[in-house]
Amino acid sequence: MTFHSVAWVDNGLRLLDQRALPQRLVYNDYHSYHEVAQAIREMVVRGAPAIGAAAAFGMALAAAAAPEDDPEQALALVGEAAAVLKAARPTAVNLSWAVERMLRRLHDPALVSVADLRQAALAEAQAIAAEDVRINRQIAVNALSVVPDEAVFIHHCNTGSLATVDYGTALGVIRMAHERGKKVFVLVDETRPRLQGARLTAWELQRYGVPFKVIVDSASGHFMRTLGVDLCVVGADRIAANGDTANKIGTYNLAIVAHEHGVPFYVAAPTTTLDLSIPDGSHIEIEERPAREITHVGDCAITPAGAEVANPAFDVTPARYITGILTEAGIAYPPFATSLARLLALTQEAGAQKEAGGRRD
Amino acid sequence: MTFHSVAWVDNGLRLLDQRALPQRLVYNDYHSYHEVAQAIREMVVRGAPAIGAAAAFGMALAAAAAPEDDPEQALALVGEAAAVLKAARPTAVNLSWAVERMLRRLHDPALVSVADLRQAALAEAQAIAAEDVRINRQIAVNALSVVPDEAVFIHHCNTGSLATVDYGTALGVIRMAHERGKKVFVLVDETRPRLQGARLTAWELQRYGVPFKVIVDSASGHFMRTLGVDLCVVGADRIAANGDTANKIGTYNLAIVAHEHGVPFYVAAPTTTLDLSIPDGSHIEIEERPAREITHVGDCAITPAGAEVANPAFDVTPARYITGILTEAGIAYPPFATSLARLLALTQEAGAQKEAGGRRD
Repeated sequence: MTFHSVAWVDNGLRLLDQRALPQRLVYNDYHSYHEVAQAIREMVVRGAPAIGAAAAFGMALAAAAAPEDDPEQALALVGEAAAVLKAARPTAVNLSWAVERMLRRLHDPALVSVADLRQAALAEAQAIAAEDVRINRQIAVNALSVVPDEAVFIHHCNTGSLATVDYGTALGVIRMAHERGKKVFVLVDETRPRLQGARLTAWELQRYGVPFKVIVDSASGHFMRTLGVDLCVVGADRIAANGDTANKIGTYNLAIVAHEHGVPFYVAAPTTTLDLSIPDGSHIEIEERPAREITHVGDCAITPAGAEVANPAFDVTPARYITGILTEAGIAYPPFATSLARLLALTQEAGAQKEAGGRRD
Repeated sequence: MTFHSVAWVDNGLRLLDQRALPQRLVYNDYHSYHEVAQAIREMVVRGAPAIGAAAAFGMALAAAAAPEDDPEQALALVGEAAAVLKAARPTAVNLSWAVERMLRRLHDPALVSVADLRQAALAEAQAIAAEDVRINRQIAVNALSVVPDEAVFIHHCNTGSLATVDYGTALGVIRMAHERGKKVFVLVDETRPRLQGARLTAWELQRYGVPFKVIVDSASGHFMRTLGVDLCVVGADRIAANGDTANKIGTYNLAIVAHEHGVPFYVAAPTTTLDLSIPDGSHIEIEERPAREITHVGDCAITPAGAEVANPAFDVTPARYITGILTEAGIAYPPFATSLARLLALTQEAGAQKEAGGRRD
């Protein structure tokens, strides 16, 4: 069984429509950056790394749509696409990271023709996608040391192959532990309001053969107290310089409850999720999503007509509740201000060496 | 607009079918204790005080069905009804309290004929129902002292007129504060899996004109941190001698999160919810409800086919997270082992005096 959340097929972006899961496996094809931005807004594609890659391919579609003979206008169009794509969802930093990386690549003065720009855009988007998979696997390998041989996890939202280009971040950690023979069991937070846990994580875990039970989000404390939980692992949409982490609404409650029970609480994310430009979580914009996500499940109305709701898509977990941040460059422990800066410096150094090596080839 | 969750109409028990709300206001009539037990199991009626009253009327239906000329068989039938009704739901103590009270009344040797038994059963059930309303109002009056003049509440599950015979426990506290001119605003936990908050509490608050917003259960910490919350108030299904409180799943997480933010956390319940026969919460049986409550919302399937779930209906909040327990006899503060025993003694004394007074009349 193979599925791809984000793929380049027939000169277009093919996205697995995550709104239809687990009932139906539907792929949609997109041929303009406007369509891609819309798909990101409507959460056809979701998960910080996956929307980053999707946006990169959206930039490639913008370049492909540029007039054949006008490189300046091509760059202008790519710039417009960048603005529209970055505005599609405000909280996850991977989206703007991917778009900025694409822009940097496309402003290389060595790219003189529109054909050059198109080729470079597609190659860069494909590189971002390929790196995402490699990075996720490395996060999971690095995390093995913190996973006991028998481990009961609580996992929030969906952070698997569906939330990334492939393999996943937090769910990748669980998957790798299972593949390496550890005995893992997952309590899957259903993750209201969009139920990414019940719909998507459960669907993925079935495919990987990992045993699990879906629980309501508010039951985590009950299970920590009665069943015993070894660790929580979640993804991230943006991590500030001090380690404060924006992630799916409910992450903060889970972190507090884990802290109160002495259960280790890990964030798994690529270093592209780090945003060291902001000192702490108070600088992270929290997206407010449509009321209907709370008032309805599918077509079923839950609330009485006219009831008001508040629907923040994310919350910020202060760094003091986080045991460690699992990245492809290693595990950061408190104080995160220094450990995260060190990991990022390592990554950038490795990147620079690789680039220099590439130039020498 | 008036509605009645539990009422005696035309020689039968009329229950507001809470499964149909908020879409439809449906009443069902019941004429046997078996039907009443079924209605309790299926949560046509829910809320600890409401199921207590419903069970009392169920006992009255058993007495009414007894053969005209055989008081012993009538008592045997009532005994059978008691066993069936008490087994309908295990966690809330009000159910067994009401049934035991009915049994005590019906074993009064002064009741010699079946007609006596029938009359006494109905009168006692009606007394239980009437007392519930009076007690709820007294809880709310007593609670006024802990509610600021401007108060943002978080409320979990439904504890209003729907969960009681009328007025409500925790929601009664909010309602009374509103009626007495305090400026209240309620963040309504939707309360997965059965969504009593989104469906029932929102519906009640609309009727009372109390402003509110529905939130997902896992967002409480986010709002405590960003909006500011003045107090949490919840109901209870059983309170142990040390103050440990069983209530709807999610109460424990909310209590931990409130504690972490220094937000006062109150339990509102009649003294009939106290179970001083158990020293602490570890002795409370937690009901496991059907998987379908999590896997489906209405007819919409959420989880993939074959996904396992765990669905405890309640959790136990240790007493150390509880600021105070609001009862009709006063407010109990820690240490609860002494304060609850004192309140219960006061209540029993008042009851004995009233009974003695009644005999003198």
